[in-house]
Amino acid sequence: MNTKTMLKTAEAEVRELVERWLEAVRVKDIDGIMSHYTADVLTFDIAPPLEYRGIDTYRKNWEGWLPTFRGPVGYEIRDLGITASDDIAFSHSLNHISGTRTDGEETDVWVRVTVCYRKVDGKWRIIHEHISVPFYMDGSDRAAIDLKP
Amino acid sequence: MNTKTMLKTAEAEVRELVERWLEAVRVKDIDGIMSHYTADVLTFDIAPPLEYRGIDTYRKNWEGWLPTFRGPVGYEIRDLGITASDDIAFSHSLNHISGTRTDGEETDVWVRVTVCYRKVDGKWRIIHEHISVPFYMDGSDRAAIDLKP
Repeated sequence: MNTKTMLKTAEAEVRELVERWLEAVRVKDIDGIMSHYTADVLTFDIAPPLEYRGIDTYRKNWEGWLPTFRGPVGYEIRDLGITASDDIAFSHSLNHISGTRTDGEETDVWVRVTVCYRKVDGKWRIIHEHISVPFYMDGSDRAAIDLKP
Repeated sequence: MNTKTMLKTAEAEVRELVERWLEAVRVKDIDGIMSHYTADVLTFDIAPPLEYRGIDTYRKNWEGWLPTFRGPVGYEIRDLGITASDDIAFSHSLNHISGTRTDGEETDVWVRVTVCYRKVDGKWRIIHEHISVPFYMDGSDRAAIDLKP
């Protein structure tokens, strides 16, 4: 393969990871989700703390979050941009999370997502993830959970 | 150079970019800051909108923000982790922004920062930036601007 073909393949491989991750999130398959992360993944998530270091604490976070949805998790990935070299890659997108929670609340929020990947033993894995919403600097310091792309 | 030496150099080059960027931010050198971004940089910033596309709108954002500090901008980068291949790279860190604003308010906040880079014509540039604080999901939806690492 020439370099161009190789990078195209790397991008396609990362895109496939994202699609498998997305499917696992929707059906709340915790093992499927976690299979895409390295053991030392560093995550900047929507809610505190500032950071999660390592897959064990991050898994607990997922285990707490997924059951708060009554049915499947509504999850859409928009404007996915992937940049890949042969062994590292990153992506950015706007993700839409929606669904009815067990307490009856309707969730409908757009978040910004940046993900960094590394190819480990021939398999792409997520080594860093950053998920957020901005906040209003109008004195309220309220999270901007009402924005739409 | 062998591959290991090359990657070490790439990481050192990205680190140098970060240091020059940091120095430019501290002294409010807007041209110095903007020289590190590509024309089509995509930014997920702390405040709305959800995203900035392109250097022109992002520059306006910096031009509005820098003069709100009475003196130099207090800016510290902690736990900087850089991953680099020969032509793309990414980094994550916890950044501390502090200082007195022109309205007398004291700013003292830790933000999570993820930056993605590409080597363009032999020079590393920022092509994507994600800066955020998490928010409290306790019903208040208040930005967690009081967290410390």
